[in-house]
Amino acid sequence: MSFEILILNGPNLNMLGLRQPEIYGAETLGEVADRCQTRADQLALEIDFRQSNSEGELVTWIQESRQNHDGIIINAGAYTHTSVAIMDALLVSELPVVEVHISNIHQRESFRHISYISNVAYGVVVGFGTFGYEMALESLAQKLTSP
Amino acid sequence: MSFEILILNGPNLNMLGLRQPEIYGAETLGEVADRCQTRADQLALEIDFRQSNSEGELVTWIQESRQNHDGIIINAGAYTHTSVAIMDALLVSELPVVEVHISNIHQRESFRHISYISNVAYGVVVGFGTFGYEMALESLAQKLTSP
Amino acid sequence: MSFEILILNGPNLNMLGLRQPEIYGAETLGEVADRCQTRADQLALEIDFRQSNSEGELVTWIQESRQNHDGIIINAGAYTHTSVAIMDALLVSELPVVEVHISNIHQRESFRHISYISNVAYGVVVGFGTFGYEMALESLAQKLTSP
Amino acid sequence: MSFEILILNGPNLNMLGLRQPEIYGAETLGEVADRCQTRADQLALEIDFRQSNSEGELVTWIQESRQNHDGIIINAGAYTHTSVAIMDALLVSELPVVEVHISNIHQRESFRHISYISNVAYGVVVGFGTFGYEMALESLAQKLTSP
Amino acid sequence: MSFEILILNGPNLNMLGLRQPEIYGAETLGEVADRCQTRADQLALEIDFRQSNSEGELVTWIQESRQNHDGIIINAGAYTHTSVAIMDALLVSELPVVEVHISNIHQRESFRHISYISNVAYGVVVGFGTFGYEMALESLAQKLTSP
Amino acid sequence: MSFEILILNGPNLNMLGLRQPEIYGAETLGEVADRCQTRADQLALEIDFRQSNSEGELVTWIQESRQNHDGIIINAGAYTHTSVAIMDALLVSELPVVEVHISNIHQRESFRHISYISNVAYGVVVGFGTFGYEMALESLAQKLTSP
Amino acid sequence: MSFEILILNGPNLNMLGLRQPEIYGAETLGEVADRCQTRADQLALEIDFRQSNSEGELVTWIQESRQNHDGIIINAGAYTHTSVAIMDALLVSELPVVEVHISNIHQRESFRHISYISNVAYGVVVGFGTFGYEMALESLAQKLTSP
Amino acid sequence: MSFEILILNGPNLNMLGLRQPEIYGAETLGEVADRCQTRADQLALEIDFRQSNSEGELVTWIQESRQNHDGIIINAGAYTHTSVAIMDALLVSELPVVEVHISNIHQRESFRHISYISNVAYGVVVGFGTFGYEMALESLAQKLTSP
Amino acid sequence: MSFEILILNGPNLNMLGLRQPEIYGAETLGEVADRCQTRADQLALEIDFRQSNSEGELVTWIQESRQNHDGIIINAGAYTHTSVAIMDALLVSELPVVEVHISNIHQRESFRHISYISNVAYGVVVGFGTFGYEMALESLAQKLTSP
Amino acid sequence: MSFEILILNGPNLNMLGLRQPEIYGAETLGEVADRCQTRADQLALEIDFRQSNSEGELVTWIQESRQNHDGIIINAGAYTHTSVAIMDALLVSELPVVEVHISNIHQRESFRHISYISNVAYGVVVGFGTFGYEMALESLAQKLTSP
Amino acid sequence: MSFEILILNGPNLNMLGLRQPEIYGAETLGEVADRCQTRADQLALEIDFRQSNSEGELVTWIQESRQNHDGIIINAGAYTHTSVAIMDALLVSELPVVEVHISNIHQRESFRHISYISNVAYGVVVGFGTFGYEMALESLAQKLTSP
Amino acid sequence: MSFEILILNGPNLNMLGLRQPEIYGAETLGEVADRCQTRADQLALEIDFRQSNSEGELVTWIQESRQNHDGIIINAGAYTHTSVAIMDALLVSELPVVEVHISNIHQRESFRHISYISNVAYGVVVGFGTFGYEMALESLAQKLTSP
Repeated sequence: MSFEILILNGPNLNMLGLRQPEIYGAETLGEVADRCQTRADQLALEIDFRQSNSEGELVTWIQESRQNHDGIIINAGAYTHTSVAIMDALLVSELPVVEVHISNIHQRESFRHISYISNVAYGVVVGFGTFGYEMALESLAQKLTSP
Repeated sequence: MSFEILILNGPNLNMLGLRQPEIYGAETLGEVADRCQTRADQLALEIDFRQSNSEGELVTWIQESRQNHDGIIINAGAYTHTSVAIMDALLVSELPVVEVHISNIHQRESFRHISYISNVAYGVVVGFGTFGYEMALESLAQKLTSP
Repeated sequence: MSFEILILNGPNLNMLGLRQPEIYGAETLGEVADRCQTRADQLALEIDFRQSNSEGELVTWIQESRQNHDGIIINAGAYTHTSVAIMDALLVSELPVVEVHISNIHQRESFRHISYISNVAYGVVVGFGTFGYEMALESLAQKLTSP
Repeated sequence: MSFEILILNGPNLNMLGLRQPEIYGAETLGEVADRCQTRADQLALEIDFRQSNSEGELVTWIQESRQNHDGIIINAGAYTHTSVAIMDALLVSELPVVEVHISNIHQRESFRHISYISNVAYGVVVGFGTFGYEMALESLAQKLTSP
Repeated sequence: MSFEILILNGPNLNMLGLRQPEIYGAETLGEVADRCQTRADQLALEIDFRQSNSEGELVTWIQESRQNHDGIIINAGAYTHTSVAIMDALLVSELPVVEVHISNIHQRESFRHISYISNVAYGVVVGFGTFGYEMALESLAQKLTSP
Repeated sequence: MSFEILILNGPNLNMLGLRQPEIYGAETLGEVADRCQTRADQLALEIDFRQSNSEGELVTWIQESRQNHDGIIINAGAYTHTSVAIMDALLVSELPVVEVHISNIHQRESFRHISYISNVAYGVVVGFGTFGYEMALESLAQKLTSP
Repeated sequence: MSFEILILNGPNLNMLGLRQPEIYGAETLGEVADRCQTRADQLALEIDFRQSNSEGELVTWIQESRQNHDGIIINAGAYTHTSVAIMDALLVSELPVVEVHISNIHQRESFRHISYISNVAYGVVVGFGTFGYEMALESLAQKLTSP
Repeated sequence: MSFEILILNGPNLNMLGLRQPEIYGAETLGEVADRCQTRADQLALEIDFRQSNSEGELVTWIQESRQNHDGIIINAGAYTHTSVAIMDALLVSELPVVEVHISNIHQRESFRHISYISNVAYGVVVGFGTFGYEMALESLAQKLTSP
Repeated sequence: MSFEILILNGPNLNMLGLRQPEIYGAETLGEVADRCQTRADQLALEIDFRQSNSEGELVTWIQESRQNHDGIIINAGAYTHTSVAIMDALLVSELPVVEVHISNIHQRESFRHISYISNVAYGVVVGFGTFGYEMALESLAQKLTSP
Repeated sequence: MSFEILILNGPNLNMLGLRQPEIYGAETLGEVADRCQTRADQLALEIDFRQSNSEGELVTWIQESRQNHDGIIINAGAYTHTSVAIMDALLVSELPVVEVHISNIHQRESFRHISYISNVAYGVVVGFGTFGYEMALESLAQKLTSP
Repeated sequence: MSFEILILNGPNLNMLGLRQPEIYGAETLGEVADRCQTRADQLALEIDFRQSNSEGELVTWIQESRQNHDGIIINAGAYTHTSVAIMDALLVSELPVVEVHISNIHQRESFRHISYISNVAYGVVVGFGTFGYEMALESLAQKLTSP
Repeated sequence: MSFEILILNGPNLNMLGLRQPEIYGAETLGEVADRCQTRADQLALEIDFRQSNSEGELVTWIQESRQNHDGIIINAGAYTHTSVAIMDALLVSELPVVEVHISNIHQRESFRHISYISNVAYGVVVGFGTFGYEMALESLAQKLTSP
């Protein structure tokens, strides 16, 4: 039996590689998905990699994960700082959640220092670039397979 | 002639009964709709009971109520605390509005103590569980039928 | 066997009907008591309807309700925003408490947005005029008689 | 026909002359009453000079002034900074109100810089010692007799 | 060669003319579009005039403008004050942005004084009614055609 | 010659033993009075042990202590956090004052972290349960009898 | 020997009677000067009545009063809330200072609630209209002639 | 008949072109005056273009505009953020006021985000460089000539 | 069997008697140790009395007390207000902790009103001079020997 | 050639396994060191694993790492929230820094939400238990070996 | 060739020696000018020593220094804490600026702890009495003559 | 007889010349010591120049200076902003204290704007680079030798 991880990306992450490359790097979101797939294969995990600009769609996907997935990795982008609805949906999912940020949000504007997601994620990975997704996968693999 | 009330439910309320039952109880949103229908029948009101995870969809429904409904009951869930857009839409509707919260938001995290909806609702019902919907209906019935 | 509800009114509510009728309406407190009695009769509840301008007297009445009553409806008026003593007394009573406000306090001065009572009441009814007392009675009736 | 002014003194003002004479002076409250009587006689006003340590009693006296008096001078002492109930009672009275403080509260602890009374008084006299009562009387005389 | 300007309108602006006409005036959004078209013709600009109640849809439209437009005029309505996602999308677009508000937001509720859009727009036009759209067009025309 | 200590208890302390025993313990206020009497006898002090729910009554008792007592121990309960009037009365008394709290108020709600009494008491005893009254007595005994 | 009082008026007070008559009344500053002269004659005081829109000029006049006057009445207008320089000049003068405001500044915008002048004036008269100048004169007369 | 607009420039705007050209551009204030004159001619407006480093002089000029002008355009420079006196003078003028800032003050130090002028201007133009003066003129032309 | 109490003194307490004697008294820390020894003998306790200027050393001593002592009395001096590390060490010790301050910290600079130690101590003794150490010992004796 | 990583642990981390195991787990710091050694071997890194309760010693070790190490992993414990000195030392080191916290500090007391270290670390790993050290090692291995 | 330093003194510094000598000392401003001249002679600097009570005049002098001077020493007095205009003028001057305060402003009222000047001065000298002017001269001499 | 000055340097100042040379310059701390020695020789002062990364060690050195030195110059580095213990030690020393900062801390991160040392130093020298040590020495020389 295998575990399936929902990897969610919030608004503007579909523009990765285009947006402020000095902050976010030149990799595209498709390349991140590939990178995650490779690492997931190594860890014997399945992944379901998605992106949406819509807060409501993200909420719905998280609700559905309650039935369909075993863990969530979420980079909620700008919604990290403004969405109580996504935080509540993560609670509803009752799944282990890892929060990822590509850049170090603590070194940017002060409104990016606050995360509603951090209230419900068990772990947070900040500032490691797109490698942070792999670190999150590794943690979930360890968590889901430990007794 | 009969009055029709739009009853709106915001994000994650479709998960009622699943989400944190120690806070929200075990009743599902379908059961709440039934409960509202029964009470509305007693009060000779018609109801239009909906739920959405999308802030924009809620805004649109409220705008349309200006033509189609006589009052609004809204439990905006997490959007209560973050959505100026829904508050503005309620102003546009020019309908009497009752705000409902199932749990007592004043006893939860401090970011749940602030409600944009309360700025435009004429009345607020907090903490009575799903019975609060019935209280809201009773108030609207009284308000719409009083001279 | 019947349940008896203590209905408490704080400072200046004895002046109801005189004070700022554009905010509080023209009904007097005596008329509110009558309205409560009528509704209580329908609900098979007994009521004990009182008013005091004294914080200490309100505290004492609440303490005594521990022995003599089954639930409390309180419109603490201005003490809502300043009295930790009344909040503490309500905790001592160990009774179910409903908080009522005639006007929508969230649309008035900012110091009226804070309620110590909301920390200990199970439910809060705000802005429905004097009809809010009836809504509170109905909730208590439901709560006390449900298994 | 003559106007009657209710002159109210809050908690600890009965100790005037004893309490911190470097701040409040050596005059007793009885001497202040005499001083007010003399000035009122000159101005053809009647006065009703009272003191209470009880917030509730002050509220009640102010409510009753609605029927019995033509203006209020109030030195609410410590309740200036904490009593919304007295502020509300002054609104109920619908009388012209002058607020008096013997010491300059703006040069003392920061919690004495806030006055609920100032929200409802038409004029405020601060820091003139007990002579401030006479200034307040003179203003009321002018206000009540001007067309 | 001609420049094309994306003119974006946020939530509730489709209700223009209906909503609080004492604040926003009686003109409808269709009339604003016509007014913009007329002015654009004078300035030899093309325009793409849109409205959405959905934050996610606005984000997507802005992302796409990176390929299809030469400048953005945005009246983000209520999302002005709450949407980091729209601000981030405007950064992604790498286009010159003008922010427009019909009413003077500085004279309204304090939560309307904060604009995330102002962090990324080069210019802001506030309070000129719907004429502000024309002012924004004129500025973009000047900016895009100056060497 | 013997010293007499006024021991004052504020609102809801008459309910000691009933109220939240997990915080305040099971001892009643009568038992605390007995405990104080025993310790006072050992220390050759006389005590005058009282309780009131009324802020005004507490103010008046403190004022009178100026003539009748040699020191004050005060557990002002909820009035600790809200009463400037009691603080002022303690200043008027010109007696040495010890503040006592049964529970550790620094580990409870943030509004209980502020004490007006601490501004005028020479010493504060917090969190030792009802034994704190004995500690306060011992300190006063030492202070009053030291040269 | 007679005392001379410097009566200073800050920015925009030269427009009295024109500016917002619903707040400041219809009297002109010349009429206020006349009113002050009349009252000063009754009190056997001399007055020196001036107005300036310039903070620097007001500072200089206050500095000079150290040599030439016996007391200061100041209505600093908008500089009340922003000028540390005038506050410092009043300290330099070493004269008794009365602060006057025509309107009740505590009932206006929050930035008008703060007064640097109140830190150095011995007394403050707020909200009595232009009659406040007379009250200030009366206080200075009493203060300068009392032993 | 023609309308005359008072165009006011506050402190340091006489140094335009010298001061921080990366923020304010290389144009001098004289060139801005010429630019305004040209645009005013097109719009059939007369202009009165002035600059002062003195808050008091600006206040006086604004007061005088009440008699002599039909509208005001003001770039108050640093006084924007600190001068209640100028705000009050603009109220006294009872003229339509447009506020202009050359740079986008929302992207600079936080103390430049606050504008007293915005409380009384009907419109605000921010960040369009010196072209903003022309936009303001155009708006006033439209406003003064519309019925 | 006997209980041993670790009595810890933080930075600058070794200078007791020299430092600001008007605040801390003339007694030296050696004399305080003697006073504690005497009282401990009476209470049949053993004490281990230490002082350090080093936060790290205090942390280490507290960690070691977990093995070697039965209770802690701590006057952390300036570290009271700044050291989360000492607070955490006290948690690690799992011993009953009493916090002592010689002066009444609530009447000094505002940064001395905050104590990290109060979050973990069961009781706090403030303002009783060096006699506070004896009060703390008496409480620990009572606590350790009560069933 | 091999890279050597300095792994620093701040105050109370030597008590790991003893302190609040419900938060920090039952593993000891020695076991964490072993776990790090194993992972480092896999990654072909060398490690230098240390702990200190002394802020000054941590500062000195970090300064010395400038010469002796290639990267730093730091769990500064309580000093995370209070030590500017450690933050400055990390800047001096000019090495890549990863910040690790065993527990999710965002779900604990608010003073633990602030980290000075996050201002200078390139990445932050929060809440993954002691596995976070391994994640940090993996990131440094990737960073140091990537071109 | 010699360097000329503009030494500016703000409001009330002309009263030096008269104003609060316990804070500012007994020396007059003329004596400070002499002291500066003597030190400047030693350092081979020329000085231009001025004082004004007018913010606008100070702004103008600073603007002119751009052409005429090589450095600025400024004690802006009360304008230190309120004048953005002076700060902006110092930026315009593009000269090296030293800020001087005679008293230690950090030990006075909290509104004196904020300095706009410190944002643009390269160095700040606080609390050394009038000797601070000499220290500032010495620094400028060193700065202007170092390569 | 000669005066001896203790010159203290806090954490990371031993790295001077290495750390962020764009802020602190290229001079090493040894060179600063030499520079101080040279200037001290000119002023006929002796100096005792030290550095420590340990807060506790700095506290101890300051305590000892009470016996051994005549004045203190302190650049407490990062402890400036966090150490109440050092502030208290400086009070214990009862010596004249000058605070020095090499960089202009008012132009850096906001947490560097607060200095506990400024509460007890008589003078503060900020932003003059290492020349500030010489300025501090000159001031102490003047202070210690003036009658």
